[in-house]
Amino acid sequence: MTTLTSLLAQYDLVRQATMALTQALSDEDCCVQSMPDASPVKWHLAHTTWFFETFVLERFELNFKPHHRAFRVLFNSYYNGIGSQHPRPRRGLITRPTLAEVEDYRSNVDARMAALILIAAALPPARVAELVQLVILGLQHEQQHQELLQTDILHLFSCNPLQPAYATGDVPPVARVLPLEWQQYQGGVIEIGYADDGFCFDNELPRHRQFVEPFTLASRLVTNGEYLAFIEADAYRNPVLWLSEGWDWLQSQQLTQPLYWRQIDDQWQEFTLHGLQPLDLQRAAIHLSYFEADAYARWADARLPSEAEWESAVASQSQKHASQSLLQLFDTAWQWTSSSYGPYPGFRPSADAIGEYNGKFMVNQYVLRGASCVTPVDHSRTTYRNFFPTGARWQFTGVRLARSV
Amino acid sequence: MTTLTSLLAQYDLVRQATMALTQALSDEDCCVQSMPDASPVKWHLAHTTWFFETFVLERFELNFKPHHRAFRVLFNSYYNGIGSQHPRPRRGLITRPTLAEVEDYRSNVDARMAALILIAAALPPARVAELVQLVILGLQHEQQHQELLQTDILHLFSCNPLQPAYATGDVPPVARVLPLEWQQYQGGVIEIGYADDGFCFDNELPRHRQFVEPFTLASRLVTNGEYLAFIEADAYRNPVLWLSEGWDWLQSQQLTQPLYWRQIDDQWQEFTLHGLQPLDLQRAAIHLSYFEADAYARWADARLPSEAEWESAVASQSQKHASQSLLQLFDTAWQWTSSSYGPYPGFRPSADAIGEYNGKFMVNQYVLRGASCVTPVDHSRTTYRNFFPTGARWQFTGVRLARSV
Amino acid sequence: MTTLTSLLAQYDLVRQATMALTQALSDEDCCVQSMPDASPVKWHLAHTTWFFETFVLERFELNFKPHHRAFRVLFNSYYNGIGSQHPRPRRGLITRPTLAEVEDYRSNVDARMAALILIAAALPPARVAELVQLVILGLQHEQQHQELLQTDILHLFSCNPLQPAYATGDVPPVARVLPLEWQQYQGGVIEIGYADDGFCFDNELPRHRQFVEPFTLASRLVTNGEYLAFIEADAYRNPVLWLSEGWDWLQSQQLTQPLYWRQIDDQWQEFTLHGLQPLDLQRAAIHLSYFEADAYARWADARLPSEAEWESAVASQSQKHASQSLLQLFDTAWQWTSSSYGPYPGFRPSADAIGEYNGKFMVNQYVLRGASCVTPVDHSRTTYRNFFPTGARWQFTGVRLARSV
Amino acid sequence: MTTLTSLLAQYDLVRQATMALTQALSDEDCCVQSMPDASPVKWHLAHTTWFFETFVLERFELNFKPHHRAFRVLFNSYYNGIGSQHPRPRRGLITRPTLAEVEDYRSNVDARMAALILIAAALPPARVAELVQLVILGLQHEQQHQELLQTDILHLFSCNPLQPAYATGDVPPVARVLPLEWQQYQGGVIEIGYADDGFCFDNELPRHRQFVEPFTLASRLVTNGEYLAFIEADAYRNPVLWLSEGWDWLQSQQLTQPLYWRQIDDQWQEFTLHGLQPLDLQRAAIHLSYFEADAYARWADARLPSEAEWESAVASQSQKHASQSLLQLFDTAWQWTSSSYGPYPGFRPSADAIGEYNGKFMVNQYVLRGASCVTPVDHSRTTYRNFFPTGARWQFTGVRLARSV
Repeated sequence: MTTLTSLLAQYDLVRQATMALTQALSDEDCCVQSMPDASPVKWHLAHTTWFFETFVLERFELNFKPHHRAFRVLFNSYYNGIGSQHPRPRRGLITRPTLAEVEDYRSNVDARMAALILIAAALPPARVAELVQLVILGLQHEQQHQELLQTDILHLFSCNPLQPAYATGDVPPVARVLPLEWQQYQGGVIEIGYADDGFCFDNELPRHRQFVEPFTLASRLVTNGEYLAFIEADAYRNPVLWLSEGWDWLQSQQLTQPLYWRQIDDQWQEFTLHGLQPLDLQRAAIHLSYFEADAYARWADARLPSEAEWESAVASQSQKHASQSLLQLFDTAWQWTSSSYGPYPGFRPSADAIGEYNGKFMVNQYVLRGASCVTPVDHSRTTYRNFFPTGARWQFTGVRLARSV
Repeated sequence: MTTLTSLLAQYDLVRQATMALTQALSDEDCCVQSMPDASPVKWHLAHTTWFFETFVLERFELNFKPHHRAFRVLFNSYYNGIGSQHPRPRRGLITRPTLAEVEDYRSNVDARMAALILIAAALPPARVAELVQLVILGLQHEQQHQELLQTDILHLFSCNPLQPAYATGDVPPVARVLPLEWQQYQGGVIEIGYADDGFCFDNELPRHRQFVEPFTLASRLVTNGEYLAFIEADAYRNPVLWLSEGWDWLQSQQLTQPLYWRQIDDQWQEFTLHGLQPLDLQRAAIHLSYFEADAYARWADARLPSEAEWESAVASQSQKHASQSLLQLFDTAWQWTSSSYGPYPGFRPSADAIGEYNGKFMVNQYVLRGASCVTPVDHSRTTYRNFFPTGARWQFTGVRLARSV
Repeated sequence: MTTLTSLLAQYDLVRQATMALTQALSDEDCCVQSMPDASPVKWHLAHTTWFFETFVLERFELNFKPHHRAFRVLFNSYYNGIGSQHPRPRRGLITRPTLAEVEDYRSNVDARMAALILIAAALPPARVAELVQLVILGLQHEQQHQELLQTDILHLFSCNPLQPAYATGDVPPVARVLPLEWQQYQGGVIEIGYADDGFCFDNELPRHRQFVEPFTLASRLVTNGEYLAFIEADAYRNPVLWLSEGWDWLQSQQLTQPLYWRQIDDQWQEFTLHGLQPLDLQRAAIHLSYFEADAYARWADARLPSEAEWESAVASQSQKHASQSLLQLFDTAWQWTSSSYGPYPGFRPSADAIGEYNGKFMVNQYVLRGASCVTPVDHSRTTYRNFFPTGARWQFTGVRLARSV
Repeated sequence: MTTLTSLLAQYDLVRQATMALTQALSDEDCCVQSMPDASPVKWHLAHTTWFFETFVLERFELNFKPHHRAFRVLFNSYYNGIGSQHPRPRRGLITRPTLAEVEDYRSNVDARMAALILIAAALPPARVAELVQLVILGLQHEQQHQELLQTDILHLFSCNPLQPAYATGDVPPVARVLPLEWQQYQGGVIEIGYADDGFCFDNELPRHRQFVEPFTLASRLVTNGEYLAFIEADAYRNPVLWLSEGWDWLQSQQLTQPLYWRQIDDQWQEFTLHGLQPLDLQRAAIHLSYFEADAYARWADARLPSEAEWESAVASQSQKHASQSLLQLFDTAWQWTSSSYGPYPGFRPSADAIGEYNGKFMVNQYVLRGASCVTPVDHSRTTYRNFFPTGARWQFTGVRLARSV
């Protein structure tokens, strides 16, 4: 079990990691919202802090007094149980509080959190357990926003004709791509869902049985080179390859390629956190929507895996500890599954506002598994369920193919 | 197996049943489109005819010549493999061809179909089988449009301040509602999907196994009286009861009640095919969206059943032939399930344009099971999968509750 | 002054003329609304009747009882002073009352109007005068709708891929176009506005003075041939020729030509009341928006005339009774002026709901002068002020150029 | 005539005045765009600089090289003749260049402008005259943006729940309001348009004659107290008071009061550059749209003046130099006129891209006369024509009533 000492150390690490991600950004970069789906960096910094203030300090601090009354509404994301929130598409209008004031807010809450954790040993054990649980939830929540912060800044910079780069160092080289292999799995009655005694989100529970037919899974993700062949086969102009809603989506936005691909003077480029780069055909194709993933799979005479297939295959690999037959599981891009995001049999959200965390989004979204190159390294699990609507493209999302046997 | 003689008899029955539905309608009623999701009655009449001309006559008739060249585009619904189509939201602008000309089109195709079926015995057996299969598909397709025709005319009339009634006779009385009972089911590895040798749609195949946890199912649908209690508990103003997307949907349209409910001088009324009627608290609540069904279930401390639960429970009842523990299965309203509409494991659509029938809609829609009071009586099956988006309300859709044990 | 006998004769003539326009139309043609700006033919038939029932019969008939209570709302166009109205974009949903029922409504009101006029001689002279005035207003109103009925049916038919023709006879031949001549006018303090003792609309009053600089006016309208040269000079791709809002309008709809022009196999065609016809380069270019008229004028190194210029020039020609220097004034197409539609100095709308007729539209519209080929022949005047928004194209609208001297 | 020395002094004054307006703003405040009609402060700073670089330096500087190639597109507002522009609604996404970099851009252009002006005496006289003219145009342009910068920052701050104040000092007191008097004017053939030898915009030319009927003009603007009476008379719920398009505008946005009025705990407040303030009933009502101005006038049994009436009345007052019968002409709020914004008779825009300055906006906008409390003091003229669409409310716009005699 997490001790209070290690809890504070973890807290500090995660909170500092967030700030480290903003090093290269100006006040202006941190303030602007590039589309309703994205949030300003400053909002991420404040909202994650609001989470600790609201769900931890307010419940545990003696004589609780909020750092700033208005922040309670401004930085509430969507918790209806907690009161009003500032409308999401208007987050970018909040030039005040300034970035410096939000950093003060973070410092203030960090100090109060440290004080609280230091004296918590004096609490009854059940209260300590509750505290630990909430702090860990807050840190997991903050790690989710570390990823979102980077996806949102990438989108913002992609809208700027000056094409600024977020990352400063060299582009990390990519290992030469290995030939795609099809790994075989037996299926049968398998179990999925979290079973360990560490942290998981409520949507990973309860662990339960599913029946899975035999299937094969691709050893790696689809590459840019492979996806380019799909484009060059005129796939974006062929309705037969697309789900009906996907085709309408494509047509209404006149899409011809992935979100961050640019064709400049007959050369393919990709806009990345390192700015505009020549398209590397060896790298995994990313920033793909569900519709694109599904259409590519159809074209490749394959399909997307279900989340039960994905999880059972990956779990079996972990157990063997031996051959790494499935590559690019957690370090490259989230992988679309064919599974609509819904509750596991027996799922029950928490009773209070924390219960709004996951359950209320369980409709018209699809599950992604694995993790991406911008996911914090200690924030991935075999049972982790990420989810986005079918048209979302600004996340680090790619494709692992499957086939029925 | 269907003989050619009985095939022709079936053909005539179904085609006449369609026309019978239009008896009470004027030319104007048949021409207008009340919203993009609905189609004019005239379009239904022509499109179902186009289906036979395109998928049967064109493949089997010697010296095939279309009745009218332009109809091939006008009355193609969405089959991209078959060529262009007239834009769906503009179907109501087609005052020409007139209703009489569309009836001529029907007569012309009916005569050619009869001639074809009468001489088909001379064809090689494989061709006969193909013909029979396509004609039956066309008839099933036409039966689907018989239901849609009625849902669309109900919507059209609901937009008219004069509140016209489609049906002329008396409102059929409703049996006194029975107390809701919770039927228990064991679950385990069950099988769903079509297994007989009659007709089914491709989306009901292949029959396959699923693992289901123990569950209970309500013996009947939610009534108007029960749903009214939900409204009176202020449910349409309480975000905690709704999926996040459902709440946004509700708010943006400022909804406070089901689609066809009207509160007039403090009396609840319901707009029906028999015109405006006092709300019958004993009848099943219908014309509910997925969002409303889901919120009601949450409020009632229950949930929607999955399609595997629904089908396995209903199949077990059919096998027992005894106690009719589940009521209102096929005669009242389609029943929302919690299952996102997707392909069964191993699903393969047909190779040609017929393959566009079902597969390409398998995203962001939810499965409905059973059948409704406007479904043709020989058009329902335990394995039948209907599907609509989560905001659809103009269909005859209701709620059967489930609970995990 | 109009006698009661001649009034009844006029009434019958105008009412019959309206019905004559619907001879070639089916019930379906009369029911459908092709866009929010247009109205169904059936609605025109009913609304003009509603006008007599509301503004004449209700004020003069003893024991007034409306033909149908619901029609009072259904066929009220916009008179807020008179109560609710059915939303304009939903006029096409009213399949009931049927066309036959609306014809009954017309007959009923016609009979009551005839009875009223026949006994009116017994009324006090002031009441007779009021009656005559209101009946004439109603007839002028109905004549306006005779033109709108034709513009709306043309639009409806233009949306039909079958390209039906409204008119049955041959296309009337057009006289060979005369060379454009520039007629000169002195300007100075001129007077405009209605000054006779016949009928005029309130927006033509009061007659008043304006100061006009010397100007020239084109002897005829711009032809299709001339407008084609404008298109071929790439005008639809050159922002410098357009008003800023006109350019945005053009771009957002991706327009490249007038509303009813079609380029088919490299041949220019025009959709007309006689169906699709080869584009006649000698005819006036019509169905142009203000934006197109203004851009064409700029390209031709000219401008649109103000309404004061147009009216004073035309009035001077009428007075001379001699040389017909200005052609195509009232028989071809309405002519856009550069004048924003506003009240004349001293304008006062009538005190009651009739006062909503014109005044409340006096913003963001531009005045058109003259009359068109579908205007009833006795419905044009030198002082007549028609008006439409700058993007309207479905009316019979053309361009007469002007220049400052 | 302006000497080169005084030109440079003027240049410095205006450019410094712009920067002075940004003193109280953070980098974030300067970056964000609160709606498509508004621009970020940073954009104003850069665009006014772009104007000098493009229209002066590029034409006069030897070996001209732009400060930054991309700025030529980024900060072009709408000059199609000058090349592409960055889409207006996306101006707020440009976090790079930073505010500091834009300040560098200003310094760089200022230095080059100073150098150019200092050596300009060596140019041929015609070139000197052209230079002087363009620099003055650029300064007038920059002064227009000084006002817009303040209107845009007010709008941005009004969107912030923290209600920040732009201005720091005390709210300037307002003189006690004088009773409204109606000043009488004879009318006749009057002249309007610029006639002096100083600077004016092209839309103020040529001076020309108009005929004006006798009229009266209110001695001061409508006050908050008077406008409140209009609200309390239920004017926002009475369609008869509004232009038809105004009523639709009102309804679609559910407006009940002026843009910056807030009713908090039964107290009326107004959001201002000094933050939220109690509504001062003595002050002029401002931030009103044309629709509101027109409706108020109708309610007050008056009307808006035409621009000819306004200008001739104000000009006659200036000539008398005596009684100041018309108050609040240039120091409070722009005053809506009933005149649609159009070209004066004989108007000709300049031949090159500078000609896009005014002429292409001459449609569907209405003229405002006078000046406001945020107009630079030396930037107002009796002949000045400001213009905005009828729904614009974020400018400092008020109402001076007129009546026909």
